[in-house]
Amino acid sequence: MLAEEIKKYTNKQLAALAEELRREIVEKVKDCGGHLSSNLGAVELTLALHKVFDFPKDKLIFDVGHQSYAHKLITGRDLSALRKKGGASGFPDPEESVYDPFVAGHSGTSIGLGIGYCAARDFAGGGEKVVCLIGDASLGNGAALESIFSSEQKPKNFVVVLNDNGMSINKNNSALFRAISKATAKKRYRKINSFFSKKFKETSAFGRTLRRIKYSVKGWLNKNYFFERCGFKYVGPVNGHDLSELVAVLQNIRSIEDPVLLHVVTQKGRGYLAAEADPSRYHGVGKDFSSGKNTFSEALGEHLCSLAEIDKKIVAVTAAMTDGAGLCGFAKKFPERIFDAGICESYAVAMAAGMAKGGVKPVVCIYSTFLQRAYDQIVHDVCISSLPVLFCVDRAGFVGADGKTHQGLFDISFLRNIPNLSVYAPKDARELRDTIDFALEEGRPAAVRYPNGVCPDLGGTQKIGKNCLWEVLSEGETVVLACGARAVARAADAQKLCGKSVMLVNCRTVKPLDEKLLLSVKDRQIYTFEEGYADGGFGSAVAEFYAERGIPARLRIVGAENAFVPHAAADEQAESAGLSARAFADILEGKEHE
Amino acid sequence: MLAEEIKKYTNKQLAALAEELRREIVEKVKDCGGHLSSNLGAVELTLALHKVFDFPKDKLIFDVGHQSYAHKLITGRDLSALRKKGGASGFPDPEESVYDPFVAGHSGTSIGLGIGYCAARDFAGGGEKVVCLIGDASLGNGAALESIFSSEQKPKNFVVVLNDNGMSINKNNSALFRAISKATAKKRYRKINSFFSKKFKETSAFGRTLRRIKYSVKGWLNKNYFFERCGFKYVGPVNGHDLSELVAVLQNIRSIEDPVLLHVVTQKGRGYLAAEADPSRYHGVGKDFSSGKNTFSEALGEHLCSLAEIDKKIVAVTAAMTDGAGLCGFAKKFPERIFDAGICESYAVAMAAGMAKGGVKPVVCIYSTFLQRAYDQIVHDVCISSLPVLFCVDRAGFVGADGKTHQGLFDISFLRNIPNLSVYAPKDARELRDTIDFALEEGRPAAVRYPNGVCPDLGGTQKIGKNCLWEVLSEGETVVLACGARAVARAADAQKLCGKSVMLVNCRTVKPLDEKLLLSVKDRQIYTFEEGYADGGFGSAVAEFYAERGIPARLRIVGAENAFVPHAAADEQAESAGLSARAFADILEGKEHE
Repeated sequence: MLAEEIKKYTNKQLAALAEELRREIVEKVKDCGGHLSSNLGAVELTLALHKVFDFPKDKLIFDVGHQSYAHKLITGRDLSALRKKGGASGFPDPEESVYDPFVAGHSGTSIGLGIGYCAARDFAGGGEKVVCLIGDASLGNGAALESIFSSEQKPKNFVVVLNDNGMSINKNNSALFRAISKATAKKRYRKINSFFSKKFKETSAFGRTLRRIKYSVKGWLNKNYFFERCGFKYVGPVNGHDLSELVAVLQNIRSIEDPVLLHVVTQKGRGYLAAEADPSRYHGVGKDFSSGKNTFSEALGEHLCSLAEIDKKIVAVTAAMTDGAGLCGFAKKFPERIFDAGICESYAVAMAAGMAKGGVKPVVCIYSTFLQRAYDQIVHDVCISSLPVLFCVDRAGFVGADGKTHQGLFDISFLRNIPNLSVYAPKDARELRDTIDFALEEGRPAAVRYPNGVCPDLGGTQKIGKNCLWEVLSEGETVVLACGARAVARAADAQKLCGKSVMLVNCRTVKPLDEKLLLSVKDRQIYTFEEGYADGGFGSAVAEFYAERGIPARLRIVGAENAFVPHAAADEQAESAGLSARAFADILEGKEHE
Repeated sequence: MLAEEIKKYTNKQLAALAEELRREIVEKVKDCGGHLSSNLGAVELTLALHKVFDFPKDKLIFDVGHQSYAHKLITGRDLSALRKKGGASGFPDPEESVYDPFVAGHSGTSIGLGIGYCAARDFAGGGEKVVCLIGDASLGNGAALESIFSSEQKPKNFVVVLNDNGMSINKNNSALFRAISKATAKKRYRKINSFFSKKFKETSAFGRTLRRIKYSVKGWLNKNYFFERCGFKYVGPVNGHDLSELVAVLQNIRSIEDPVLLHVVTQKGRGYLAAEADPSRYHGVGKDFSSGKNTFSEALGEHLCSLAEIDKKIVAVTAAMTDGAGLCGFAKKFPERIFDAGICESYAVAMAAGMAKGGVKPVVCIYSTFLQRAYDQIVHDVCISSLPVLFCVDRAGFVGADGKTHQGLFDISFLRNIPNLSVYAPKDARELRDTIDFALEEGRPAAVRYPNGVCPDLGGTQKIGKNCLWEVLSEGETVVLACGARAVARAADAQKLCGKSVMLVNCRTVKPLDEKLLLSVKDRQIYTFEEGYADGGFGSAVAEFYAERGIPARLRIVGAENAFVPHAAADEQAESAGLSARAFADILEGKEHE
């Protein structure tokens, strides 16, 4: 295992390996898509950590895991099918390697995980070191801040490495960034640093002594009270691309027991010129560095722009997803009317509630999986007071390559139980626009869910309205209630595959249900079809409808089975979950095998 | 309205009113129960705010609302039926008064709400001031920290009043407390302050000038970089019981446009000696200042103690609810094995995941309503990796006097859709103990939900086990599947009321369901009964079970209708929601009116 071998490498050998890893990362991401900029930025840091610490006995806990590719490569993972079915995950995963103690696809929890692990270690009397690697953007997340501020005493043998590429937070004009970066600005240190670096080679004994002096000078100059008050010894800032500096500092840190926050400054996209020049563009990319095409996100962005031109009260709110949510055009056109909260979904939703109370019309665009972090605010701050906030729940359903940490399979069930909240699932981009118009007109809390990727226009002629909730797409005896873009498209395909004429209904409102339609078909065989967990999902709502009225309906619910779904193409995920058009056709024909 | 009149009051008159309000608060809380300590601490601060600001045109946004009674009294609310059915809510509520812009029962969102409101106001060109009142404990919540750190520019005409009673945070040994309190420790200021206060009366022109000088001196001495970096002018600390100081400072603040953080130091329980001496004891109390009796919480605490004596790996985790969750005994007995994260549920759950990975057995005790703030961590950090964390979900079902912000009606639906998580609902304290034993033995993620209040022992003889999920309590043709302590108790009562012999089943596992039992009764008339929203709830799981198998069951789901339920006794809430024993008996007899 490379991770073992590099412990004997000289810094020069490490630097050569870094270049090799970089080439491989670029190549693999070019082939498979993935996170490029952040991974390129963390190569030397990863090597230095592995040289100095004794993983997997010591624990390396990634936050988000956007920077784990180099770690994956040197711990024996093959990235040639990165993020593809059966290939390596794009994120750390204990099922993949003992070098990954935790999964990490969402921000902010690494420090909490680390503190908890240390508590358990100390109970057991273990001596392993625990290292959390967190980016500057993630540090602004509430869960991270809670764990940083929770106690003025942090565990022993606990190191938090702040990988500060200054990007996300700086862009967001964050107060946290100022607090952190105060130290970095110290010019005196830079001068001293460069003096030491130039004059003495690290290999000489004198050089090593001087290095030690250098770091104490640095520590003295750069005392960062922000972290010191949180119970850390603050060390930094360190150049995250200077292997000899990194290794020396980490060796010092490893030799002491005190909890340390090591501030490392890196460059996003390092070593790949295009990514260095435009790291945001290369943050997460598809094959051949393409930007993924997302029919719904794009339609949303365009439609919001046209609406916002007419209605001055419309504003957009995101949580670090301006690009992914399709809002770049909006941001350019209405820079004063877009609010990017950073990776702070709780704050984003509370802010939107405040805006709605103040009379503007906030449209909150957050991915399904990240909206889980604002559940309490949706209930407590938006829905109890029935404030007109419109949630655009992007990446709902199977998300494809991002895999199990990012699936949008929970939202129907966690949203539809909230009083005062309407939940919509338009079947195509055209209907998304109509639904947004309808929801804004209603002036009450609403959530519109839609998937990523390319989705076709599915036709249909009945515009959604108060008296036109669901849309009948075809007539037949057997009733298929399909909910959401992909389910409607696949149900239509299934219909063709099985040659059965069915009454295909586009159930674009999860809440309210179309009660009139449900009553009119109550004596017929009904199938519900959705891309979400069946547990508490759309079909479940239909079952409740009949059961609450004591109607013994012949109802068959078809939804995702209750298991975490790993990375693969979204279509493959649907297939594995038994939700392909073929599988549904079999169910319609009574041919399925339980 | 008193709130209008006091604008003309002298500080002496205000002080007299403060004493009057205090007496009334003590009296009303003695009669009705409620939050005592925090409300007594905020009386002068409330009066000073109302004297200086122009509410309701200016907005007063409470965080949590544990300190809103004085505000309620002077804005015309009658507290004689405080927290009782039809009486005033224990929390701010726009439905109750225009003086309350938002509901506030959960921590951390006031600043986000305020920032959002200011954005809307600035769009509209409004000039009103926005004042957020937040306690020191709430400031440590992730949503609050996100909003504080989000941007280095805060809105104009925006004031955050930090009501620092030093209690909760200090006790929690918080890093945030150190950051905040650094300024307070400045002895020099105290001396100057007392010099000015003694020498000159505020009424003289010279006195007023001196006051101004005093505050600039104070500002210079107490510059708090923590808040300054977050875009606030920091003012303080101010004695929160000195009306003339408060009014003068607030008048200064009102006269400027800059965003201000005003740090006010108050004493919890102020003016009521017993509460001053033991503010925690008097934080939230019942009638006659009694501590509420909670059968399940107490049983949990006792049982955890006995388990922890034998199994050294058991640890308890709470989020500022050691007392409420029944863990005081545990905390006393095992001070090293209880982890109170403060009002930081996200961090608490992430920490527990880390602990479980490290080999200890964390039991996380969080109220149902607050667990909403850790939804993402339950999914992402605990359940994806199937880490053995046991969630004790207290206050599940109707919570009674705390009302709509605190109802535990969502948990069944938001928990049962999470893969790898078992969900249990024991019917009484004895069964809670068995369930905890069972869940710990299973060694996988599990949640046990139970209500507050006094719950009887319901008998039963079949211990929960892998092959004994549900328990049949009585035999009969009609099947009643009751889930949870109160539902089982009421179903048993309903059975007596209607004189019908039913097969009453104690459905103590929401997930997994007892499939064998469900199949054995599939041809009979079935009723499900639960205290939670029907939407996605337990009955819904039963409906899914049959519908996924194409079984046209005769199933009637009885659960709470999808609406927010205001304060009242828990029994009254059940009655209003149509979930009383009488109502259920009517349903069993087919006598109900839709």
